[in-house]
Amino acid sequence: MLGAWACGGWQAVRRCASLPRAVRLRVRDALGAREPVEAVRVQGWVRSVRSQKEVMFLHINDGSSLEHLQVVADPSLENRDLTFGSAVEVQGKLVKSPHRMQNMELQAETIRVVGPCDIWSFPLKMKERHPLEYVRQFPHLRCRNNTLGSLLRIRSEATAAIHSFFQDHGYVHIHTPIITSNDCEGAGELFQVEASSEVREPAEKTHFFNVPAFLTVSGQLHLEVMAGAFTHVFTFGPTFRAENSQSRRHLAEFYMVEAELSFTESLQDIMQVMEDLFKTVTSTVLSKCPRDVELVHKYVSPAQKDRLEQILKNKFVTITYSEAVEILKQASQTFTFKPEWGCDLQTEHEKYLVKHCGEVPVFVINYPYDLKPFYMRDNEDGPQHTVAAVDLLVPGIGELCGGSLREERLPFLESRLQRLGLADAYQWYLDLRKFGSVPHGGFGMGFERYLQYILGVDNIKDVIPFPRFSHSCLL
Amino acid sequence: MLGAWACGGWQAVRRCASLPRAVRLRVRDALGAREPVEAVRVQGWVRSVRSQKEVMFLHINDGSSLEHLQVVADPSLENRDLTFGSAVEVQGKLVKSPHRMQNMELQAETIRVVGPCDIWSFPLKMKERHPLEYVRQFPHLRCRNNTLGSLLRIRSEATAAIHSFFQDHGYVHIHTPIITSNDCEGAGELFQVEASSEVREPAEKTHFFNVPAFLTVSGQLHLEVMAGAFTHVFTFGPTFRAENSQSRRHLAEFYMVEAELSFTESLQDIMQVMEDLFKTVTSTVLSKCPRDVELVHKYVSPAQKDRLEQILKNKFVTITYSEAVEILKQASQTFTFKPEWGCDLQTEHEKYLVKHCGEVPVFVINYPYDLKPFYMRDNEDGPQHTVAAVDLLVPGIGELCGGSLREERLPFLESRLQRLGLADAYQWYLDLRKFGSVPHGGFGMGFERYLQYILGVDNIKDVIPFPRFSHSCLL
Repeated sequence: MLGAWACGGWQAVRRCASLPRAVRLRVRDALGAREPVEAVRVQGWVRSVRSQKEVMFLHINDGSSLEHLQVVADPSLENRDLTFGSAVEVQGKLVKSPHRMQNMELQAETIRVVGPCDIWSFPLKMKERHPLEYVRQFPHLRCRNNTLGSLLRIRSEATAAIHSFFQDHGYVHIHTPIITSNDCEGAGELFQVEASSEVREPAEKTHFFNVPAFLTVSGQLHLEVMAGAFTHVFTFGPTFRAENSQSRRHLAEFYMVEAELSFTESLQDIMQVMEDLFKTVTSTVLSKCPRDVELVHKYVSPAQKDRLEQILKNKFVTITYSEAVEILKQASQTFTFKPEWGCDLQTEHEKYLVKHCGEVPVFVINYPYDLKPFYMRDNEDGPQHTVAAVDLLVPGIGELCGGSLREERLPFLESRLQRLGLADAYQWYLDLRKFGSVPHGGFGMGFERYLQYILGVDNIKDVIPFPRFSHSCLL
Repeated sequence: MLGAWACGGWQAVRRCASLPRAVRLRVRDALGAREPVEAVRVQGWVRSVRSQKEVMFLHINDGSSLEHLQVVADPSLENRDLTFGSAVEVQGKLVKSPHRMQNMELQAETIRVVGPCDIWSFPLKMKERHPLEYVRQFPHLRCRNNTLGSLLRIRSEATAAIHSFFQDHGYVHIHTPIITSNDCEGAGELFQVEASSEVREPAEKTHFFNVPAFLTVSGQLHLEVMAGAFTHVFTFGPTFRAENSQSRRHLAEFYMVEAELSFTESLQDIMQVMEDLFKTVTSTVLSKCPRDVELVHKYVSPAQKDRLEQILKNKFVTITYSEAVEILKQASQTFTFKPEWGCDLQTEHEKYLVKHCGEVPVFVINYPYDLKPFYMRDNEDGPQHTVAAVDLLVPGIGELCGGSLREERLPFLESRLQRLGLADAYQWYLDLRKFGSVPHGGFGMGFERYLQYILGVDNIKDVIPFPRFSHSCLL
């Protein structure tokens, strides 16, 4: 084994306990310090080395912030392992920086290379701005790229902000089941789950589950159960669709925020929660990691910053489905799918509507009864019969949220489920309407689409921690 | 349609917008109000009705707290639909209660039955304390039982406290993949995932994934990747084991908190985070929902309250695996499995060790090299060769947490993976050790076991929102 002060070897690591005591600071805290500190210890990865005759400058980063900490050192501390990508521990004095662009800098007394970096085979290069397509090829290393680091810190802050939003508003958090026999709404292709021993030896016919088991497509029906006890509930977890599309907008595995509210008699109340959630979480993210958001906006989507500020200031627009169809019919544009009352809105229609309303988020409400699943509440209106459903469309993405009032009236639900031949399968759901049923509603928001939208990120794979492809599953 | 003031009909619901404006309060907020309020509106489910000649008392609850709000009303407001289990909206004055046991009560001016309850078929009965085995039969209704309500509110608070703990300590939250081709450590039986169309038509041989895909058993290896960029990371999500056991301690789908810390050279640092996490989250839960915890302790596990207070005051005990084996060898008790250095600790051994140490949480550290997975760090010690691994054992549960330092030294890891024939499969994991590898470690904690332990709940199915059985999947 090497001695306690040796640098650069794998073996040197264990001995650092013998270093003199110094305050251990993360880069973020060092950068934000108000006063100089006599003896600090900062650890991180080297982002640049600049060696001059009289002085050496290092930038180090530990992922706690986008900004690097500048280290100023005597050139005698140089070392052949002290390269871009190596991991170091620097001990020294934290002092006010003479440079306008940074608050503090670290005057190094010792620099220890904790782990060297084989720079010739390291796919990230010093001071190079790698495009996202390039770093996506290295799922185990790409998070050391600045833009990806920012995207994932923002994702983490947004996650925390979503939890706080619901907690602050008195919602109970529910972990809805991932493996379930319930396909919710026939919303798309399902993934089926079996014990892997069954897949290997299917002849044995001993099934782990006594019914076909799938990965959840939505926690909504489970949340409705819980809203019948806790009034306000939410979930925020993975959902799955086995849709065979290699698009920039779809993932087989994605996260969804879902909420259900009992004693809610108007669709506007649901829409208000959707809008509040969007605005509160976005404002929190903008204030908690402004530099990260700035970087993404600057290099990925330059116009998004101003747009976002406008969106946060104004109330979302609301139009009915029927109004939407009229707008589309009067459009000068020719659509591949002719707009017609009673037909689904296609992506081209959604894009047009959003543009028509000024490139802002648009709620479309009151969809045709026959287009929507059984649980949506009958509006019992006019000859063009609708349900109390809402979709939130946003520029560049399409549908960001979907929600509805749920049918709480037993006779309405019973006859609809009977017509659909689903009354037996949903006996428990009917049951809920016999025991203190209340008007209620809820919504879901795709988390990755939310991140794509606020950040202006084109490819959905860039806002998830591990990029995956519909047909392969890296790592 | 019935008129705006009609009670008890499904149809009456939509008209309540015409009620005069009153402050809408949740039960929790009404109970906690400091001052009387002239006009309030409270909604909830009736927990009891007591009708006397001159006055009628209702208890209503909306799931925002364990405590019910007492409603005092004129008997003329009685209604045949106003029964246990029905949903009501009460409007009136919130006043100081003359009763010692409650702060505020509601003097009703109007009571509207929003949804009646078919009390003859409703499985929950007024003022009956149903055992948990009984309510477990009704997954869609049991959360309206007091004890289950408390357990799920506690689960929600604990979830929030875990997120806050890591956020407050500068960890980045990572959603590690649920569907993965990586089995992490061969930790148990896996669930395999296929698009359900493949299960129906396996002859076609067009697979959704180009490699076998499983549900995750742990996010550890993915977290290690991220710790190499953000230093401190955590995840808190579902994990899966297809173990064919119908025990009170196992679930096919359960939640795990996992954290990884870079620049961590001592196992004690990992253990400190485990202990801090346990104590901080537990203290938060105790202070945020004291009544819920009290109820569970009172009716489910009377001795647990005092034990928990002791545990929070004292430092967790630490013993080495070798010491543990010595303690077991010297025990007067006869074990089914003879304790022997180099063999796994069995449940009977863990129970004895916890008892030996005074029925408190016990860290067991430094396990035999050959017992543990490839990624654990070699201690390179003596003839009885160990790795820097730790298990946290707790009374009544067994293993609550497991963790280790990870092998960051390329040569050690390379030769171990080669001996195991895994070098090709883990090329990406070896790769991480070439580019600024740092000493690091981490741990995982089973969330349901944690809840079982602090609450003294015997059956793990009672701390999940939807009880499931290994061989069936309700709802």
